[in-house]
Amino acid sequence: GSGVGCCIVIKCHAAVAWKPNAPLVIEEIEVTPPQKNELRIKVIATGVCHTDLYHLFEGKHKDGFPAVLGHEGAGIVESVGPGVTEFKPGDKVVPLFISQCGECRFCRCPKTNLCERSWSSERYASMSDAESHFTCRGQAILQFMGTSTFSEYTVMNQVAVAKIHEDARLDRVCLLGCGIPTGYGAAINTAQVTPGSVCAVFGLGAVGLAAVMGCKNAGASRIIAVDINEKKFEKAKVFGATEFVNPSAHSKPISQVLHELTNGGVDFSLECVGNVAVMRSALESCVKGWGVSVLVGWTDMEDFSARPIQLISGKTWKGSLFGGYKSKDFVPVLVHDYMSGKIKLDEFVTHSMTLEQVNDAIELMKTGGCIRTVLNISTE
Amino acid sequence: GSGVGCCIVIKCHAAVAWKPNAPLVIEEIEVTPPQKNELRIKVIATGVCHTDLYHLFEGKHKDGFPAVLGHEGAGIVESVGPGVTEFKPGDKVVPLFISQCGECRFCRCPKTNLCERSWSSERYASMSDAESHFTCRGQAILQFMGTSTFSEYTVMNQVAVAKIHEDARLDRVCLLGCGIPTGYGAAINTAQVTPGSVCAVFGLGAVGLAAVMGCKNAGASRIIAVDINEKKFEKAKVFGATEFVNPSAHSKPISQVLHELTNGGVDFSLECVGNVAVMRSALESCVKGWGVSVLVGWTDMEDFSARPIQLISGKTWKGSLFGGYKSKDFVPVLVHDYMSGKIKLDEFVTHSMTLEQVNDAIELMKTGGCIRTVLNISTE
Repeated sequence: GSGVGCCIVIKCHAAVAWKPNAPLVIEEIEVTPPQKNELRIKVIATGVCHTDLYHLFEGKHKDGFPAVLGHEGAGIVESVGPGVTEFKPGDKVVPLFISQCGECRFCRCPKTNLCERSWSSERYASMSDAESHFTCRGQAILQFMGTSTFSEYTVMNQVAVAKIHEDARLDRVCLLGCGIPTGYGAAINTAQVTPGSVCAVFGLGAVGLAAVMGCKNAGASRIIAVDINEKKFEKAKVFGATEFVNPSAHSKPISQVLHELTNGGVDFSLECVGNVAVMRSALESCVKGWGVSVLVGWTDMEDFSARPIQLISGKTWKGSLFGGYKSKDFVPVLVHDYMSGKIKLDEFVTHSMTLEQVNDAIELMKTGGCIRTVLNISTE
Repeated sequence: GSGVGCCIVIKCHAAVAWKPNAPLVIEEIEVTPPQKNELRIKVIATGVCHTDLYHLFEGKHKDGFPAVLGHEGAGIVESVGPGVTEFKPGDKVVPLFISQCGECRFCRCPKTNLCERSWSSERYASMSDAESHFTCRGQAILQFMGTSTFSEYTVMNQVAVAKIHEDARLDRVCLLGCGIPTGYGAAINTAQVTPGSVCAVFGLGAVGLAAVMGCKNAGASRIIAVDINEKKFEKAKVFGATEFVNPSAHSKPISQVLHELTNGGVDFSLECVGNVAVMRSALESCVKGWGVSVLVGWTDMEDFSARPIQLISGKTWKGSLFGGYKSKDFVPVLVHDYMSGKIKLDEFVTHSMTLEQVNDAIELMKTGGCIRTVLNISTE
């Protein structure tokens, strides 16, 4: 092999999810050497995202255990397997839960960021990659979303890793592994928010705040932030929200409140909660004729629904994964945008913890007590 | 007044729907003279469309009676009221169920064909215009969809009438008042079918056949016609369908059949039935990443629904009324397209009848025995 230590199994610490609805357990795991086209990555920092929680506690993917969660990380290449030419040990990287092989019909189509090589093309039911590079206590451990950043080391195919600027601050740009591109890109790429438009963002977690930032950077004239937790309004203002509505404070449906505020509905609405009732409200809040509503929040346990007239009257219902960004191409661009001040990342990070505190970070997220917690896994 | 006979009440025949779920009754009605900005139109021919049936038999709009149905007509201006400058007696016209005032924010927006002056902006619940120009047996009779073409004469505001070529054949271009633009425009304007693409059209009534024609004229390479009535496949071929699938002939869901036929789903699907289960199938039949599904069929009695992943995986769900065509601007263009051979109309007309046979025409439509019946109301 061409990289440092590429033939050696590494023993390191990781937070293992042995079963649903139970705390993660810090274990010593074995991490295989990188094989053909693979990199082994020393994880430096990782965000804790709702999708981790969803997998762990909402019980959908019961066949996805045991697994190492975490999919919003940044790290440094430790070693590379045969066939890897664009990475070398020491490179700073962001693991990608949507790959970009560059060759499949999706990668070749400019309209989408899906990739046939992604774990999600085949293994959606278990939310994990088909091949595992981890063992613990003699058992194979699955790689959640193909990434597993709640570990000191992980192994990934080069089609699912973005090489980023050597000066990038890893405990910030780790957020570019999921939440921030997801919300920001949903506004920029999926909704294609236009200058001067009126937008509403439902749900003010990290994804929703990133959507607010996307609406602002796209030139929206009004950005209405909607959340039942009014404590989030101050933060939303930082990212560009101009108005704030708490649905619980109104006896009317939120869609009617927004119609009255906007002379017939908003031009763009973004659902960043992952709740089918909110998805409906977000569509109904749009103006007929040209309103566009985007599903950003992740859920797949229930149907979303509406009356046909909502679409027949000229509205559009869309959705995206990872904000529609082709991952390898655009994560480095977003790192640059952060370093040049075009997008904010620092303001999302409300807590910093260690890997050992991962269960505290999860608790904090469940109670809405944070925007993003970053776990500092290793030092560079 | 400036037009012939513009101050005289006309007594004429019309088919009156006195109540839901009952045959229409041919009655003598009184038609008011045209008032400011109004035209009185001698109706020459009218199609019979499912939306008439929907109103009449499916019991949704119980407060929409008594009414004169019919919204797919063509005629000749009999007289004009004050303020009418662009029409004169003798002009050939198509009454429009979506107006185009040219001044409201919808008319000024190129993205939509809605108009704030349409009856549907205010009177959606009764499917009728607020003002009636008809009486019968001393009672005001509503104008269904603002048009009421099942009458020898009707009165409409000039914002809802298209002036068409003086040589247009009225017993054909009447179909441009609803069904044909609805399906054709859904493919051309709403789905924006691209050259070389793979399309599926669900439901092969007049609207579905027009959608097939739209896909063909947009350059689709494969057009898969889907219907449970295989008798319709021959006609679909005339309009450009290349493949034919009967969902009843498969034990698998139709979406799976189409995925297998197309290596992962169609690029564009058009639902031309007005059935929420078919709407779901049409979306599910699309390829992830860029598939676009359009609701064309009219229903509003139930929710349509799907799993969020259908949109989050990059599909788009849209809809349109009247195929997205700005009505006054584009009906004359479509008349020209018919006269120049760019679009077919003759092939939709399977039956010709008189106003007195309107109930027979409705029965024929209920049993799927026709594509379009044209009622010849008056001679030119």
